[in-house]
Amino acid sequence: MVTILKSTIECNDTRLGKSFDIFIQVMIVLSLVSFSVETLPNISDELRTYLYRFEVFSVSIFTFEYIARIISADDKKKFIFSFFGIVDLFAILPFYLSTGLDLRTLRTFRLLRLVRILKLARYSAAAKRFHRAFIIAKEELALFLFAALIILYLAGVGIYYFEFPAQPEVFSSVFHSLWWAVATLTTVGYGDIYPITVGGKIFTFFILILGLGVVSIPAGMVASALSKAREMEDD
Amino acid sequence: MVTILKSTIECNDTRLGKSFDIFIQVMIVLSLVSFSVETLPNISDELRTYLYRFEVFSVSIFTFEYIARIISADDKKKFIFSFFGIVDLFAILPFYLSTGLDLRTLRTFRLLRLVRILKLARYSAAAKRFHRAFIIAKEELALFLFAALIILYLAGVGIYYFEFPAQPEVFSSVFHSLWWAVATLTTVGYGDIYPITVGGKIFTFFILILGLGVVSIPAGMVASALSKAREMEDD
Amino acid sequence: MVTILKSTIECNDTRLGKSFDIFIQVMIVLSLVSFSVETLPNISDELRTYLYRFEVFSVSIFTFEYIARIISADDKKKFIFSFFGIVDLFAILPFYLSTGLDLRTLRTFRLLRLVRILKLARYSAAAKRFHRAFIIAKEELALFLFAALIILYLAGVGIYYFEFPAQPEVFSSVFHSLWWAVATLTTVGYGDIYPITVGGKIFTFFILILGLGVVSIPAGMVASALSKAREMEDD
Amino acid sequence: MVTILKSTIECNDTRLGKSFDIFIQVMIVLSLVSFSVETLPNISDELRTYLYRFEVFSVSIFTFEYIARIISADDKKKFIFSFFGIVDLFAILPFYLSTGLDLRTLRTFRLLRLVRILKLARYSAAAKRFHRAFIIAKEELALFLFAALIILYLAGVGIYYFEFPAQPEVFSSVFHSLWWAVATLTTVGYGDIYPITVGGKIFTFFILILGLGVVSIPAGMVASALSKAREMEDD
Repeated sequence: MVTILKSTIECNDTRLGKSFDIFIQVMIVLSLVSFSVETLPNISDELRTYLYRFEVFSVSIFTFEYIARIISADDKKKFIFSFFGIVDLFAILPFYLSTGLDLRTLRTFRLLRLVRILKLARYSAAAKRFHRAFIIAKEELALFLFAALIILYLAGVGIYYFEFPAQPEVFSSVFHSLWWAVATLTTVGYGDIYPITVGGKIFTFFILILGLGVVSIPAGMVASALSKAREMEDD
Repeated sequence: MVTILKSTIECNDTRLGKSFDIFIQVMIVLSLVSFSVETLPNISDELRTYLYRFEVFSVSIFTFEYIARIISADDKKKFIFSFFGIVDLFAILPFYLSTGLDLRTLRTFRLLRLVRILKLARYSAAAKRFHRAFIIAKEELALFLFAALIILYLAGVGIYYFEFPAQPEVFSSVFHSLWWAVATLTTVGYGDIYPITVGGKIFTFFILILGLGVVSIPAGMVASALSKAREMEDD
Repeated sequence: MVTILKSTIECNDTRLGKSFDIFIQVMIVLSLVSFSVETLPNISDELRTYLYRFEVFSVSIFTFEYIARIISADDKKKFIFSFFGIVDLFAILPFYLSTGLDLRTLRTFRLLRLVRILKLARYSAAAKRFHRAFIIAKEELALFLFAALIILYLAGVGIYYFEFPAQPEVFSSVFHSLWWAVATLTTVGYGDIYPITVGGKIFTFFILILGLGVVSIPAGMVASALSKAREMEDD
Repeated sequence: MVTILKSTIECNDTRLGKSFDIFIQVMIVLSLVSFSVETLPNISDELRTYLYRFEVFSVSIFTFEYIARIISADDKKKFIFSFFGIVDLFAILPFYLSTGLDLRTLRTFRLLRLVRILKLARYSAAAKRFHRAFIIAKEELALFLFAALIILYLAGVGIYYFEFPAQPEVFSSVFHSLWWAVATLTTVGYGDIYPITVGGKIFTFFILILGLGVVSIPAGMVASALSKAREMEDD
């Protein structure tokens, strides 16, 4: 019995194991969709009932899976306190604890279960290549992240001095200005906060010339590290 | 007769074949322009008449082309049910079916006919190189698309918890928040929806640092796969 | 006399030639600044007088240069009708023709004179490398530009069908929708036009996934072609 | 005594030296946080008192460090007038000079002290690689910066002629239009200024096709120069 459970749950090689894996992943995706639908403002009582029933069903499945994984684990204690053991517990716990409190937040832990999908990719060539690419570019990425943080802070403080006198309500502190720096240097530019003084605009120009590179170079770096990793593989 | 038709329509090598191809492509582009002009809100009746006359003319041409292609095809049935056969039919059908219904939508199928232009490029070195580059980077692209979808969902759910209490009208469900996630992680940032709470802004900062790479690395990946493909060619 | 003129104007190797070149370039930049200042809405009469005087001075210099270049040219006719000959004439002509008409527009031709600066870079290694990189990536760039135009049109037509019924004032024609497509696929996202329907938002998501790559891959392509060109140089 | 000071302050190899370095860096970050908090609009008097006390404490530490560095320097004069010597002085001077004037601006000089952190990275492989990558791509970067400036100016002047007649309040001069050019070509797109005329929109389309590359190619260039630098290292 335990052997069958084990081969179903832990092996991805057998047909039954693969089917079970795919079923659980579909259930995860469906329960995330159901959770998202529940947040819609004007849903009918009928739909809400259906969603609740699906919730009961999916939690039953996840509870069964959780217990099955404990039974089939060689070292039960180790599984319970492992990353995936805790994730699996947190995905069902809120349902059983729902004592009037709004525990829907905890249900988002189910999202972490999506990480299981990555397990399938664990042994794929692409994932290995990525891992190698990150190791190749690790130091440069850290350097750039650090440089990006310094430039963000510099941009925030700089614009504060230019814009605070003109827009005390918008650029009301260095922290508000940092929000501007984030939205600007990532080029999102919502338009909720922007410089209106001549000095602030010229400052924005210079900080963008400096900062755009810092923000966009890392992506190119990972891409070229990847092609490097691919070459290493070919050798 | 059929032989002449065949050499005109199917060969791009002969002078007549090339001229016919260019003529059809110009007609496709013109009929798309005419279709776009028709959507303008305040066009005069005179212009509308001209557009209708051009419509009749272009559909005649496309009908002639469609029939000619059927005649010149070796396997007529195969052509009719092939991708290009169906596209060609859909490009003329709406005109003949227009029985008061607004079938202008179907006219956009004409756009698919633009794909024919790609036929000319089919044997070019650049298109081959692209094909090879996509094969090289296929696995990584799939991995990144998957990662991008997970990050988008995470971003949507996360911002929902931060912003819903503050802006229940704007971030009214996880789906509304997903729209924010799309506009933000692609750095479009229309400004119709953005975080106003401190928590939401800090969350945006972290999700952008994580997400920008995931969205922009694939472009760099294709570019370096392309240069790899070019190298393979040179060997 | 002509020999001195010639060596001053045409040679960048002699000290006098270099000084003259730099002086003319500084004059071009200054006259562009002066032109820009003149467009400011509330400038004093005094400043306007100074700007006019500078205008007279700079046009005198450019006229002198133009005549000197004609004199020192071996084939006078060839110079007058060459690209730079026409640019130089257009840079001074508006001043002499100003008969009440607003010819300030023509003064922007002076901008073309900035191209002269590129002359200095003509023989530099970097410019040569660029030229080679563009030749390497030429075909792919053309393919991408074509793909970008098709995606832009597709995006425009698509969003028109989704958004026209909901926002007839904003997405009032395919052309208005094309403006949305340009602002969105380049990720500028001004916020003057954006989808509000669920269908339009989902369509935007898919078109962005497709389109972002098409718009951002060419930049990566040129960059890797450049590094390829550098390698070729080293060999 | 001086020897102990010296080994503490100047060496990063000894345990004491490393601890001192980390302590100073933590103090710099904390004093920047405290400075940012001080700019918040509604902070209580109590918090203000705590911030002032921390200010006194941090300035004492920085003063002690400054004096210690002078004492331990072999060439005292050289240190005082060195870049870091001046930065260290400017970080404490405002506190002692605060005679009613708002010298908080000068406190931002403390930011420059963050540069010290880079000292630690000075001998790291990543930093060296960057330096080499910048040397490799120096000429191209200069060429692109120059091209970017010309395109920005062209975009500004062009849009001015298209939009000034329609929006004289928004595109009121070439300088206002340059702000539009900066926000558009970097794809930030705040939405405070955008074309509304048909001509202006078409112009924006063409300038974006031209300009996006000029702005985003340099990032890819640095990335590929970096991978080149890494290869050189391996040889």
